[in-house]
Amino acid sequence: MTMKMFASDNNSGIHPAIMEAIAAANSGHAPAYGSDSFTDAAIGRFKEHFGENCSVQLVFNGTGANVIGLKAMVRSHQAIICTDGAHIHSDEGGAAEGFIGGKLLISPTKDGKLTIADIERQLPNIGNQQRSQPKAVSISQCTEIGTVYTIEEIKALTSFAHANGLYVHMDGARISNAAAHLGCSLKEMTADAGIDMLAFGGTKNGLMAGEAVVCFREELATELAYIRKQGMQLGSKMRFLSAQFERLLTDDLWLENARQANAMARLLADGLAKLPGVALTQPVESNAVFASMPRPQIEKLQQAYAFAVWNESLNEIRLVASFDTAEEDIAAFLDASAQALEG
Amino acid sequence: MTMKMFASDNNSGIHPAIMEAIAAANSGHAPAYGSDSFTDAAIGRFKEHFGENCSVQLVFNGTGANVIGLKAMVRSHQAIICTDGAHIHSDEGGAAEGFIGGKLLISPTKDGKLTIADIERQLPNIGNQQRSQPKAVSISQCTEIGTVYTIEEIKALTSFAHANGLYVHMDGARISNAAAHLGCSLKEMTADAGIDMLAFGGTKNGLMAGEAVVCFREELATELAYIRKQGMQLGSKMRFLSAQFERLLTDDLWLENARQANAMARLLADGLAKLPGVALTQPVESNAVFASMPRPQIEKLQQAYAFAVWNESLNEIRLVASFDTAEEDIAAFLDASAQALEG
Amino acid sequence: MTMKMFASDNNSGIHPAIMEAIAAANSGHAPAYGSDSFTDAAIGRFKEHFGENCSVQLVFNGTGANVIGLKAMVRSHQAIICTDGAHIHSDEGGAAEGFIGGKLLISPTKDGKLTIADIERQLPNIGNQQRSQPKAVSISQCTEIGTVYTIEEIKALTSFAHANGLYVHMDGARISNAAAHLGCSLKEMTADAGIDMLAFGGTKNGLMAGEAVVCFREELATELAYIRKQGMQLGSKMRFLSAQFERLLTDDLWLENARQANAMARLLADGLAKLPGVALTQPVESNAVFASMPRPQIEKLQQAYAFAVWNESLNEIRLVASFDTAEEDIAAFLDASAQALEG
Amino acid sequence: MTMKMFASDNNSGIHPAIMEAIAAANSGHAPAYGSDSFTDAAIGRFKEHFGENCSVQLVFNGTGANVIGLKAMVRSHQAIICTDGAHIHSDEGGAAEGFIGGKLLISPTKDGKLTIADIERQLPNIGNQQRSQPKAVSISQCTEIGTVYTIEEIKALTSFAHANGLYVHMDGARISNAAAHLGCSLKEMTADAGIDMLAFGGTKNGLMAGEAVVCFREELATELAYIRKQGMQLGSKMRFLSAQFERLLTDDLWLENARQANAMARLLADGLAKLPGVALTQPVESNAVFASMPRPQIEKLQQAYAFAVWNESLNEIRLVASFDTAEEDIAAFLDASAQALEG
Repeated sequence: MTMKMFASDNNSGIHPAIMEAIAAANSGHAPAYGSDSFTDAAIGRFKEHFGENCSVQLVFNGTGANVIGLKAMVRSHQAIICTDGAHIHSDEGGAAEGFIGGKLLISPTKDGKLTIADIERQLPNIGNQQRSQPKAVSISQCTEIGTVYTIEEIKALTSFAHANGLYVHMDGARISNAAAHLGCSLKEMTADAGIDMLAFGGTKNGLMAGEAVVCFREELATELAYIRKQGMQLGSKMRFLSAQFERLLTDDLWLENARQANAMARLLADGLAKLPGVALTQPVESNAVFASMPRPQIEKLQQAYAFAVWNESLNEIRLVASFDTAEEDIAAFLDASAQALEG
Repeated sequence: MTMKMFASDNNSGIHPAIMEAIAAANSGHAPAYGSDSFTDAAIGRFKEHFGENCSVQLVFNGTGANVIGLKAMVRSHQAIICTDGAHIHSDEGGAAEGFIGGKLLISPTKDGKLTIADIERQLPNIGNQQRSQPKAVSISQCTEIGTVYTIEEIKALTSFAHANGLYVHMDGARISNAAAHLGCSLKEMTADAGIDMLAFGGTKNGLMAGEAVVCFREELATELAYIRKQGMQLGSKMRFLSAQFERLLTDDLWLENARQANAMARLLADGLAKLPGVALTQPVESNAVFASMPRPQIEKLQQAYAFAVWNESLNEIRLVASFDTAEEDIAAFLDASAQALEG
Repeated sequence: MTMKMFASDNNSGIHPAIMEAIAAANSGHAPAYGSDSFTDAAIGRFKEHFGENCSVQLVFNGTGANVIGLKAMVRSHQAIICTDGAHIHSDEGGAAEGFIGGKLLISPTKDGKLTIADIERQLPNIGNQQRSQPKAVSISQCTEIGTVYTIEEIKALTSFAHANGLYVHMDGARISNAAAHLGCSLKEMTADAGIDMLAFGGTKNGLMAGEAVVCFREELATELAYIRKQGMQLGSKMRFLSAQFERLLTDDLWLENARQANAMARLLADGLAKLPGVALTQPVESNAVFASMPRPQIEKLQQAYAFAVWNESLNEIRLVASFDTAEEDIAAFLDASAQALEG
Repeated sequence: MTMKMFASDNNSGIHPAIMEAIAAANSGHAPAYGSDSFTDAAIGRFKEHFGENCSVQLVFNGTGANVIGLKAMVRSHQAIICTDGAHIHSDEGGAAEGFIGGKLLISPTKDGKLTIADIERQLPNIGNQQRSQPKAVSISQCTEIGTVYTIEEIKALTSFAHANGLYVHMDGARISNAAAHLGCSLKEMTADAGIDMLAFGGTKNGLMAGEAVVCFREELATELAYIRKQGMQLGSKMRFLSAQFERLLTDDLWLENARQANAMARLLADGLAKLPGVALTQPVESNAVFASMPRPQIEKLQQAYAFAVWNESLNEIRLVASFDTAEEDIAAFLDASAQALEG
């Protein structure tokens, strides 16, 4: 048995069914760059989940999905409002600024969620020629600390944003985990809730590699293919990206994977909460657990397990469960945690 | 039997040995973003082929490999000298201009090759503050019309470029086909010939997806990882990119694949040359065949086969063989060509 | 008497009436960034000349005026069609690529003018996701070699461009000289001829510094102020830019200055044409004279006069007359030319 | 008498001596783009003030001076550390992000000054490939709220920055006011205190328009001319920019102007502090006064005077004195303030 890691859900591999889909697509020749039947099928699946009017561009990774979607929404003299923890701000190497040439307007947040007040604070800049013009809001669902916006919260944000001439982008690197938590469809949380552009995550949920830009506004869709190409995210042997998505979106594999990861995070959190000196620091609403524990315990655990120290000064760690995390993985980690505590 | 296409070598699928390598890498968890043993192994293979001093960044596609390597070489006020057929100029959707913010200085070419005179023509711009400053030369090996620079030609270009303060980049999307043609090692054609930065192609030679930025100059290597990340080309489940390259560069699979494609192009060219009204328009030095044929023949053939009309006004077509093109595929295409001629 | 130069019309100084206007504006305080009465007055003058529906942004220099206007027309995945001599391509240090992030599609030209065929050649790229999407055409009036498009030529280009979804930009660094040559109004050559965006030149025609972006399409005007600011072309003490334009566009000073420069170029050309061994190489339609003369003569003349050798291999020189070039300046230069020939 | 404004020091006009210098430069022809004797003289003056080893590029405005200097220091995958009030962040329309393509890392500040702790907080990002790499620190002297770093504070910041591989940039839009306050030379506060790159302000201190990029590091100077050109900040009739600076830096006009503005701010602050209900909200160390006063008083004063409400929720206003603000202007404003209070 190979030990499972908790550093990130991208430490997991390829779901067996996805692997089969890749192998099945590997037969003979197919047109490149998306003019193949696998891509047609994948887009068909997206439309089943997100509605007939969405348009879809498959890309390689999450940074690509985020930045290409955002670039369709804002020009370089415009700005994107997001939280200080937003992946587009803290973990994408300046890709947004580099490719779009525009500004991110950052709001601090405690629970990972952007608020209407955060947007409101930026509105006075609109019409001031000295300022980057707010034009889009970007939220992450799940947030980077594992919390999940309710559908009502999303609708409130999108209504306020739209009323003020702003588009709303969703970084959905872990959108499936959010849907599993909320018990809603993908569409209810996005198109139906007023989201204009979505980065749909596949890699963290069982794909080898693959994310999708899903656009719900016709006016934003026309240039996406060119933006994807200039953004270096157009794959030539597209069928292998497409086959993965086609399978993920069939028979609710996306949901099954997400539910498993979420359930394992729940199990982990419950176990950790019982340990003396350990405290959960964020509500567990998806597949991530944030907890504080004594420093020596952290250090001992790190000898056996890969995971991130999220906040050094608070001794807060992040543990992420994956689609393939099993009950015995959790049990083993909890055992190790208990031992580390005793030692 | 699925019919093989001749539109491009990226219409082919994944070589079976590469597919096996992906599957073999799909066991348990592994660190993300390149801190895994598969990536170490892949980089080791690159060093076997290109020398210990190269540094390597794996990326998703050819546009990414080209632009990231070039961005390490030039700043936005500088310029890259290349031919009018260069992929970075004609087929990458403006990615170079978009990501680098600099200018391409374009030279027309008949045989696909850049000449010393093309470089020389740009030298007077150096030191003129009104002009983008030439700082790099980019050549494609093979060229976009299937021709191959000799090692002497490469050395002459790199010597001249270096003597004038210019770096030299090689777009090696089909570098393996060039090496197969020249009968030389990958290193002889690159590091040993003065190339500073290489985009090493994998996708067209049997990978599912994967290219590599190979840097031969220490001063250019320091920032490459950050440029890759900002360029949206850092894969999270890196092991699957790495496993492909590790296998491609083992037991000369790269060379075997390239030789097969080249041999099939040769067979195809020889067959076409015998057909009345058909003329080869470029020397066949790699896996592409350029030929002119009567318009009605082209149109009939296109009903059965995918291939590109390269030059509409000359009735010139391009046919590309792949690693999996077989003798019977060539025979079938030649039959169809003969029939189309008669019809 | 200070000797006049012929290197460029930007070697001239400030027209006395413009100098007076600057001095007159230097009284007390005024709101910054364009909210002052001088700017209102200047914009009023522009509307008199170009029509009520134009919108105007004053900027510092020609590169700024060109690039800011173009950025309002194209996004980074799009392309601008222009000639190889276009100032935006050859003499603006890559500002267009740097600030817009898009591609220039270059056409060679003999007479400095772009043709419909040049545009037509790029149309097949439209809709091809691998290619920068042609979205604008940029022409220079006068061209960089002193020739002038007729109004019919402009209309033919704009009609063809608009029919194919392309905007048309005019680099009017020397537009006044063109209007003086054609005997038409500024509006007849621009708004009425289908031009969408104009860089209106002031500096070469007697200002200290100042150019204007004049936009004739409402849909392109909305973001111009923000683009100007991000483009670092918003002046704080705007009244001094405005006062210059207000004066230039009053009592036809712009036309008077241009006529003088054109007339002096004509006189110069006529004189040169009579010299043995000297040949005019371009029609003289504005304030520039292109001529070839024996190399030794060029070198002797350069000891006394500043001017550019335009084409080294053809021994072709460029001589530019300014608003303040006088008949005696021409006579002196012709004398010197004659003596240089004899020597 | 024209009433003086307090909205900004750029509401003032051109100092009479500067106006004379412009007029004096307006004689005959001169080479363009900086190859003229006025530019040589201006650069000579800069070297007198900043040392022989500085290199100087004149530009049009403060945004240009800041962004061009910064672009020489950082590449797009790198980041600049600054305060939330920094002009490059809040008032330059996203020019830094647009032209550099990199990220600003923002620190909140109470007194306008960046601290070592602000820099320290960003150091863990260095070497993390997911993060924009901190490469430069930018401070404003004076700060945007009128406070002035002591020379010791500057030295502490530059030592810490250099020790951690970071360059230090100074936005010196009001550097003369800071020098007047500290009673030090321009060099003591910049080159001698470890500053690597300076944006030297002229416009707010009596010029018509003009700022300078002053570089104190040879390695950063080589590309500045090309960056200026691509940044659209190269003026053609450069002599008129140069003549202004030559005069400003002669006979300590820069200091005399700054002292006058500072003294008037002091007078204004002292007067305001005596009014009931009015409180100074920042120490007055340069030519700006920040004060809170009752809302109705603000509104009445605004009917007569232009000034900025800096913080709406705190009823905090900003009043800026200029080189030409006189004692009677202050007296009049204080009278109006007193009356507004009574009313």
